[in-house]
Amino acid sequence: MNLFDLLLGKPLATSDAEHEHIGVAAGIPIFGLDGLTSAAYGPEQAMSLLVPLGLIGVQQHLIPIFGAILVLLTILYFSYRQTIVAYPNGGGSFTVASENLGDNAGLLAAAALMIDYVLTAAVGISAGVTALVSAFPALHPHQLALCLLVLALIVLVNLRGVKESGFVFMLPTFLFVGTLLITVAVGIWHAVAAHGHPIPVTAPPPPLPATMQYLTVWLLLKAFANGCAAMTGVEAVSNGVTAFKEPKSRNANRALTVIIALLIVMLAGLSYIAKAYGIAAMEPDNPAYQSVLSIQVAAVFGRGWFYFLTMGSVLAALSLSANTAFADFPRMARAIALKGYMPHVFLLRGRRLLFSHGVYALTGFAALLLIAFDGVTDRLIPLYAIGAFLAFTLSQAGMVKHWLDHKDEKHRGVKLFLNGLGAIATGVTLIVVLVAKFTAGAWITAILVPAIIAVMYGIKRHYTGVALQTADPAPIRLTELEPPIVVIPMARWDKISEKALRFGLLMSHQVKVVTVQNDTDTGFDHVWEEMVRAPMSQHSFPVPELVTVHSTFRTILSPLMDYILELEDQNPSRKVAVLLPELVVRHWWENFLHNQRVQLLKLLLLLKGNQRIVVVNIPWYL
Amino acid sequence: MNLFDLLLGKPLATSDAEHEHIGVAAGIPIFGLDGLTSAAYGPEQAMSLLVPLGLIGVQQHLIPIFGAILVLLTILYFSYRQTIVAYPNGGGSFTVASENLGDNAGLLAAAALMIDYVLTAAVGISAGVTALVSAFPALHPHQLALCLLVLALIVLVNLRGVKESGFVFMLPTFLFVGTLLITVAVGIWHAVAAHGHPIPVTAPPPPLPATMQYLTVWLLLKAFANGCAAMTGVEAVSNGVTAFKEPKSRNANRALTVIIALLIVMLAGLSYIAKAYGIAAMEPDNPAYQSVLSIQVAAVFGRGWFYFLTMGSVLAALSLSANTAFADFPRMARAIALKGYMPHVFLLRGRRLLFSHGVYALTGFAALLLIAFDGVTDRLIPLYAIGAFLAFTLSQAGMVKHWLDHKDEKHRGVKLFLNGLGAIATGVTLIVVLVAKFTAGAWITAILVPAIIAVMYGIKRHYTGVALQTADPAPIRLTELEPPIVVIPMARWDKISEKALRFGLLMSHQVKVVTVQNDTDTGFDHVWEEMVRAPMSQHSFPVPELVTVHSTFRTILSPLMDYILELEDQNPSRKVAVLLPELVVRHWWENFLHNQRVQLLKLLLLLKGNQRIVVVNIPWYL
Repeated sequence: MNLFDLLLGKPLATSDAEHEHIGVAAGIPIFGLDGLTSAAYGPEQAMSLLVPLGLIGVQQHLIPIFGAILVLLTILYFSYRQTIVAYPNGGGSFTVASENLGDNAGLLAAAALMIDYVLTAAVGISAGVTALVSAFPALHPHQLALCLLVLALIVLVNLRGVKESGFVFMLPTFLFVGTLLITVAVGIWHAVAAHGHPIPVTAPPPPLPATMQYLTVWLLLKAFANGCAAMTGVEAVSNGVTAFKEPKSRNANRALTVIIALLIVMLAGLSYIAKAYGIAAMEPDNPAYQSVLSIQVAAVFGRGWFYFLTMGSVLAALSLSANTAFADFPRMARAIALKGYMPHVFLLRGRRLLFSHGVYALTGFAALLLIAFDGVTDRLIPLYAIGAFLAFTLSQAGMVKHWLDHKDEKHRGVKLFLNGLGAIATGVTLIVVLVAKFTAGAWITAILVPAIIAVMYGIKRHYTGVALQTADPAPIRLTELEPPIVVIPMARWDKISEKALRFGLLMSHQVKVVTVQNDTDTGFDHVWEEMVRAPMSQHSFPVPELVTVHSTFRTILSPLMDYILELEDQNPSRKVAVLLPELVVRHWWENFLHNQRVQLLKLLLLLKGNQRIVVVNIPWYL
Repeated sequence: MNLFDLLLGKPLATSDAEHEHIGVAAGIPIFGLDGLTSAAYGPEQAMSLLVPLGLIGVQQHLIPIFGAILVLLTILYFSYRQTIVAYPNGGGSFTVASENLGDNAGLLAAAALMIDYVLTAAVGISAGVTALVSAFPALHPHQLALCLLVLALIVLVNLRGVKESGFVFMLPTFLFVGTLLITVAVGIWHAVAAHGHPIPVTAPPPPLPATMQYLTVWLLLKAFANGCAAMTGVEAVSNGVTAFKEPKSRNANRALTVIIALLIVMLAGLSYIAKAYGIAAMEPDNPAYQSVLSIQVAAVFGRGWFYFLTMGSVLAALSLSANTAFADFPRMARAIALKGYMPHVFLLRGRRLLFSHGVYALTGFAALLLIAFDGVTDRLIPLYAIGAFLAFTLSQAGMVKHWLDHKDEKHRGVKLFLNGLGAIATGVTLIVVLVAKFTAGAWITAILVPAIIAVMYGIKRHYTGVALQTADPAPIRLTELEPPIVVIPMARWDKISEKALRFGLLMSHQVKVVTVQNDTDTGFDHVWEEMVRAPMSQHSFPVPELVTVHSTFRTILSPLMDYILELEDQNPSRKVAVLLPELVVRHWWENFLHNQRVQLLKLLLLLKGNQRIVVVNIPWYL
């Protein structure tokens, strides 16, 4: 068993594909982790904007904002259920948008999601590691190294295949969901028992006094936009339908139901607890800063072992939430590559049957982001959610078009209504998010998306051009099968030269042996006469022509190239085959002892050559 | 005029070689700078060991030690005059030793000199820059960068050719020699005028009181060994005879005469001044440390403009003394490569007719040393001189053998005596230097020399092996000229495939088209039937065989390789020609859009293939 097999698992045969499919339980961590973990930071994102209103202000507006978010989430849930059923072979936003609204809409969704996936991978890992470093300040100098280590681990698990990553991520996911649900249940029970006014075990820090008297609509919208971060990752399941066991759509929908239900319970429960316990967000630059989630868990349970278990599982889940990007990005890249907008390598399945090049690409971009920001990616958070909502909107709009086209579908009216509602709701949210976050960094997305689309169009143009130029609808042409003119560069007479010359004689009756002569060289003519010309004419063979090319500046390659190009020019109907003898050494370092001119000549022939010049490598093994 | 031409000069034709030859005036800076500049540090090297004897002790032993050094230098001069006449095509130690004493002796000299040349290049530059940095402490953080800059400048001048480097280095050399000669002349005149007791313009620092009562022979020997550093670089001219204009030997000898005469005058004059003005060396760790040369010039002239001019020209000459290594190393490398003990690239003349690869190699090693020691190479100084004296001894011993063999030479007895005296004198000096400096670092040379010799023998063995295996004393064999079996991997039918297939049909009547099939692929058979089989059999062409190879793990390359190797195995008397269609893109980035499997397959065929497998590249240009 070699190292490769040990790290990545044995290669899987193509016929094993069915066994790699996952059930509902494995689907939840794989496609749900990103969505579920947003319960840990979504509420805080919204509440932090309400700080200036003081405790009363927060209490007053918390429930309406989260009500709106939960309604939106519910609409999205029903919309995506329909997408999953309608697209059992994978209904990612790119597929749905491009099939119904055209490639432009599809590419817009794809570009937006690509940015989002790279961000998810980088920001998820960075958030987890940042929390770990806050707990153990001694690790601070190693922030970037830790980020890259977590990235490497996630990549390794992913390269072992979809099924295995499900198993690995199951425990942290269930621990995360379990501890949060217990917190919510116990908190609500205490609150109800105390008639809505429970006494916190650990008192929350006193909220700042209100500095703002009147609530503006703008602030409310911004809080809502921030809270929408809790909704990213919802589209993951629809993109990964093919990963599930048959019946695919039903299993995928079950996983989606569980994920959304858990998310709704956690979000609703946590906002109720915040209201009941009188918890507000803290300013992040407060030296005693704690996250809202930390205050909540401490208020319900105090700072005992359960507090630390919960916070620990939150950290683990956060840093592993990057995994959803690794599950989805390669599938999306494959869907785009299938239409020719991404390099074809994204179509290849690796040794463990997943689309490994998508994993490599995502790893590369995420590592680049982590290195560029030295492992601290807080500044990238405003870029989040825009991609997701752009994709949501395009996907839902695509579904509307889908139902308009399928006139004989059952319950078409209801389906049309649900996806229409989804499209409008996510579209409005997109505008809110875009406006609210534009100056904070969303403008970067606005620049990046068109750039990515331009690159994808460039790729498509290239592939179309190649296909047009090489397409051959006609059967093989059997005319003009004239042997090529053979050119053999030769400096001395040895077994290597002999082998090349013999091969040349096989290929054509028109062989030209070219020797490059310096001012100071002794001629090659007498060797030629003795070793080739005399014996060949004696046996009545057609004798190859010896061409002597003169070199003024001691270079070998350029006079050779000149001769070959001129020969090709003078024989417009013929092919020219250049035979290059090549010494193959036993050890790599022996290459330093031999001129690498043959390699250079090959490269030159490729770069300066054309359709009619063919290179034949005659290897000589020592 | 492109950048290359601007930096390095236009390429020179081989027939221009005669014009590149230099006269005596240019030969002095090129081959003499290393030797001449040793006048600047040689005396100090010896005097620093005499410090414990106090001023009286120094005064007493200075003249005997320098007397011995000057006698040795004179012997060397006459010996090398004879070498230059006897070897007008370059009489470097390697040539003389290997021709007269065998390759072992030659390689010993070569290995020692190689170390010495690399040291000369690195230490010369470092010494110059160190002095510059002492004068301008603000430059201190940039020591290494400055060293590499000076190295780059020297390399650039050298790559322009021998003649040009002579012109560039002429001014600093003559300034260095001129200022030192004036100092010596004025100093002696003052001393004579003051009846041997001149009054210094700037008083030398008071010498330390004697801490040692009796002089040991050991100390005297060590001082002599250190002073011998003044003699390195003497062999440079004999190695570079071919660089001179005709009559080569006479011109080279004139240059040698001028160099040695100047060196003797400077060394004798400076030691007389030291004695007359009562100057001793200072401890290098003294915070007020000045070099002996600086004290001498200040004593004769005071610290006026002439002092600064002299010291400046010393610095310039020191850092440029590295140039002698650049003039000599490539010639020596060529001489060794001619005998097969160094890679053959050292035989090639570059665009400006010099042996550029020797320049590159020396630059690489010198840069490596400078970087490894961060630009401060003081610790390498003890390694000096050993290589030079080992080479002197072997060269002189070789000359003795030379005269013994040439029995009809005129004045053979005198010549034999001179070279014999040289061999004995330098041999004794070598032993003294080796013993005196062994623990200070000379042991490194003792390890490196055998290692270098072993590498050179390895190279020779490789070349001999290749020559033996490829030598072909017989004329071309005209039997068994059977066409190869042609193998063409094909995945689809397009113009590229058609081109490859048509070329295959030209080469042989036995063509096998191989297609790799996955579990999930649709077959290639119907395309084959329509596009190739049907039309070909219709025109009564022999139809190529379509071979379908099955791939369980979706890899293309390994089933292909397996098939090719098996085919080759089953046809032991046939050649197998693998035709690989290759897409040539217009822009480098387009390579990312296409599978690079063809390149991998080429590499695999080269590595796993054998004499009977030939690769034919069929390029397709977009």
